[in-house]
Amino acid sequence: MFDPVEKLKEFIRHPSVSTDPKFHEGMKGAREFMVGLLTSMGFGVEVVPTAKHPIILAQRGGDASWPHVIIYGHYDVQPADPLDLWQTPPFEPTIRGNRLYGRGAADNKGPLLANVAAVASLLEKHPKVPLRLTFLIEGEEEMGSPSFHTFLEKYSGRLKEADFVFLSDTALPNEQQVIITAGLRGLALFDVIVTGAKGDLHSGLHGGVLRNPIQALAEICATLHLPDGRVNVPGFYDDVTEPEAWERAELAKLKGDPKAYAEFLGIDTFYTPPGYGPFEAIRFQPTLEFNGIGGGYQGEGTKTVIPSKAFVKISCRLVPGQRPGKIKELVIAAIRARAPKGVKLEFVDQHDGEPYVVVPPGRPNTPPDQSPVLARAFRATDAAVAEFWGRPPLYLREGGSVPIIADIKRMTGLDSIMFGLFLPEDNLHAPNESFNLDVMRKGSATIEKILASVAGVG
Amino acid sequence: MFDPVEKLKEFIRHPSVSTDPKFHEGMKGAREFMVGLLTSMGFGVEVVPTAKHPIILAQRGGDASWPHVIIYGHYDVQPADPLDLWQTPPFEPTIRGNRLYGRGAADNKGPLLANVAAVASLLEKHPKVPLRLTFLIEGEEEMGSPSFHTFLEKYSGRLKEADFVFLSDTALPNEQQVIITAGLRGLALFDVIVTGAKGDLHSGLHGGVLRNPIQALAEICATLHLPDGRVNVPGFYDDVTEPEAWERAELAKLKGDPKAYAEFLGIDTFYTPPGYGPFEAIRFQPTLEFNGIGGGYQGEGTKTVIPSKAFVKISCRLVPGQRPGKIKELVIAAIRARAPKGVKLEFVDQHDGEPYVVVPPGRPNTPPDQSPVLARAFRATDAAVAEFWGRPPLYLREGGSVPIIADIKRMTGLDSIMFGLFLPEDNLHAPNESFNLDVMRKGSATIEKILASVAGVG
Repeated sequence: MFDPVEKLKEFIRHPSVSTDPKFHEGMKGAREFMVGLLTSMGFGVEVVPTAKHPIILAQRGGDASWPHVIIYGHYDVQPADPLDLWQTPPFEPTIRGNRLYGRGAADNKGPLLANVAAVASLLEKHPKVPLRLTFLIEGEEEMGSPSFHTFLEKYSGRLKEADFVFLSDTALPNEQQVIITAGLRGLALFDVIVTGAKGDLHSGLHGGVLRNPIQALAEICATLHLPDGRVNVPGFYDDVTEPEAWERAELAKLKGDPKAYAEFLGIDTFYTPPGYGPFEAIRFQPTLEFNGIGGGYQGEGTKTVIPSKAFVKISCRLVPGQRPGKIKELVIAAIRARAPKGVKLEFVDQHDGEPYVVVPPGRPNTPPDQSPVLARAFRATDAAVAEFWGRPPLYLREGGSVPIIADIKRMTGLDSIMFGLFLPEDNLHAPNESFNLDVMRKGSATIEKILASVAGVG
Repeated sequence: MFDPVEKLKEFIRHPSVSTDPKFHEGMKGAREFMVGLLTSMGFGVEVVPTAKHPIILAQRGGDASWPHVIIYGHYDVQPADPLDLWQTPPFEPTIRGNRLYGRGAADNKGPLLANVAAVASLLEKHPKVPLRLTFLIEGEEEMGSPSFHTFLEKYSGRLKEADFVFLSDTALPNEQQVIITAGLRGLALFDVIVTGAKGDLHSGLHGGVLRNPIQALAEICATLHLPDGRVNVPGFYDDVTEPEAWERAELAKLKGDPKAYAEFLGIDTFYTPPGYGPFEAIRFQPTLEFNGIGGGYQGEGTKTVIPSKAFVKISCRLVPGQRPGKIKELVIAAIRARAPKGVKLEFVDQHDGEPYVVVPPGRPNTPPDQSPVLARAFRATDAAVAEFWGRPPLYLREGGSVPIIADIKRMTGLDSIMFGLFLPEDNLHAPNESFNLDVMRKGSATIEKILASVAGVG
């Protein structure tokens, strides 16, 4: 049995930034690392080519009567910039205290390796465990999984034979409380480009005669929220599924401390829609966020230019009931209607993701036709978490998005058990990302136990 | 008497890019060229060291009763990149038709040599002309003249003895019409930095609880203009000196074509304050422009981040009466008052420039204490321009800023006669810069005539 921490260091050293072609070698290295590891564990590994980054599909077969679990993960990571904010280089894994620092440590290399280690340990103890396993590890998650749909179209027949999907790509609120994610927000992303004059202009020779595209863009963006925190786009909230009473009750058990959260964020005022505290807003409400804005001169000092163009990158997080296509149409229509005269608008479509919801057994809104293996797995999860963490998991919708979970559901019928392993302080998508190695060990033991129970050997 | 065109070629061959240390030799070469030329004309030349590039101070003394004219110019040029857009290399002067192509041909080597040639010709014809002359030729104009203030502090006592400054570093609208620049806009520049959370955040995990700094920045920027085109800052227009009727009349003679101008800019709607057409707005109205904006992820694709910071670079162009310090205070106070809760503001001060105005003699607003030598020089300019160009010059305020002109006024009391010589098609600051040699010859003859008249020999 390998040392999971050493393996994680090795995995992080491959700079697998999927969005940037400069990291081609890092992607290849991370992929080959994972292929090697799974092969050494006895899996039959296929590397499935896609338009961009191949998907790793690794299978342990068995009798058709055995439960079949698909374990999902991704080997790509977010870009590491701004590099100067990292205390140690992002692709040189460094342990400080009980944390391993490095880009991808928590998203998703550490949690994925916790799953791989759980399987390795289970197979070492029970070489003949009656459990079919498929690892499905993609390399485009941080790009929005553009090839995954095509992959599913081709492989859904085979995947459909499984009973459910298991993954660790969601969050824990703290080291004590496991959360099983019962829902995910969807995503609708696009860029808005505003063009004024046909070229950059000298602000002395031409300043005062035309609407600066930065000004126009600011004026557009400023209309998209109300002072009370709601998104100011007609129809935006029409299809929102309000949370069930048990979901609000489950969330209340988390006993989130708004003061501590504000301090963690470094803000002094929350800005949430009426009727939603910060913890509810994240899980139950949609958003419209500006992820990036740019235009004109951004260097040191000054350049008195009126830029020709300015742009903003918008993302909407969607809750169950909302559809990305419709939301994009609504927001773009609002922007078109509100854009000042004298500028041209252009929209660049980025990726979408449907929201997702799964209800554990025994709740008022549990689907009557829920798969018995899935129900058993949820109950095994409850028991294993209670054993290793001292209290049962909470079932909560998450603020984040894993659009492929909804795609898998739609195309294969399979639901997912999302067992979160990263913590708020792990700095996902930010400088100084890290992963808590205690969580990694405990998580791995819990997952081993769940899989053993599903197989009937635990 | 030298051949001005040959001398201009020689001058251009020295690549005197002041902003780039790589061009140290070019700066030195251009400086030595000019020192040599002025020395050969009998001037006593001093090379005054500064923190960066020395200033050339060349004097022809004489009786204290003689008029004393300072001729200003600069020997540095803009960077030449992008080099691949030049038809012939930027530092290999090439004549095509009646134009000489090369970096600095029009800004400012050609116009400066037109002045030097005028002086050389005058001195050849009238070796004993009763005229004191000082050439003041700096090497940091394209960097914003950072050493000029310190130079003025040291040399203002000597410069103060002169009667006025003469320079050719402004524009002609076309080959037929000379413009004497009667005013320049000032500048007030600063950056605004908005901070939300203390670090970048994942927009799924935290989206919906705090005000995104891009949103806050957009909301702030959107308040700074009114839909009618005015700047929406209390007190912004309080000190604006409205143009006199004669100034509007003078501008009307230019017969600017708004349609052609809109086509040149590539816009379909002007956006000017009420009561001001586009040509009036540029010359008579202050502005508040956004020169650059940035925050969050600006690369290809998407990164679902809530950035910690966003910034905007603001420049105000000021008209006579306005003061940069006061305008900055007003705009910053408005921004502070309007910033939404939950974000922090930071202001980074950039450089300032006072606006400038000079009124020729005989106008309703001519200062009663105007120097008689300056008044005589303006009248000589009117007569000489009428003689060589077939019509008198127009006296117009410019939209651009030459902050040293206001600095000279403030520190020495001297006004400037700005006799434009470059044309819109000269491609200043752009590839394929050129200078019209007919304008050079005619300009030089006119300037010689003006100087002769000022000296009483013309």
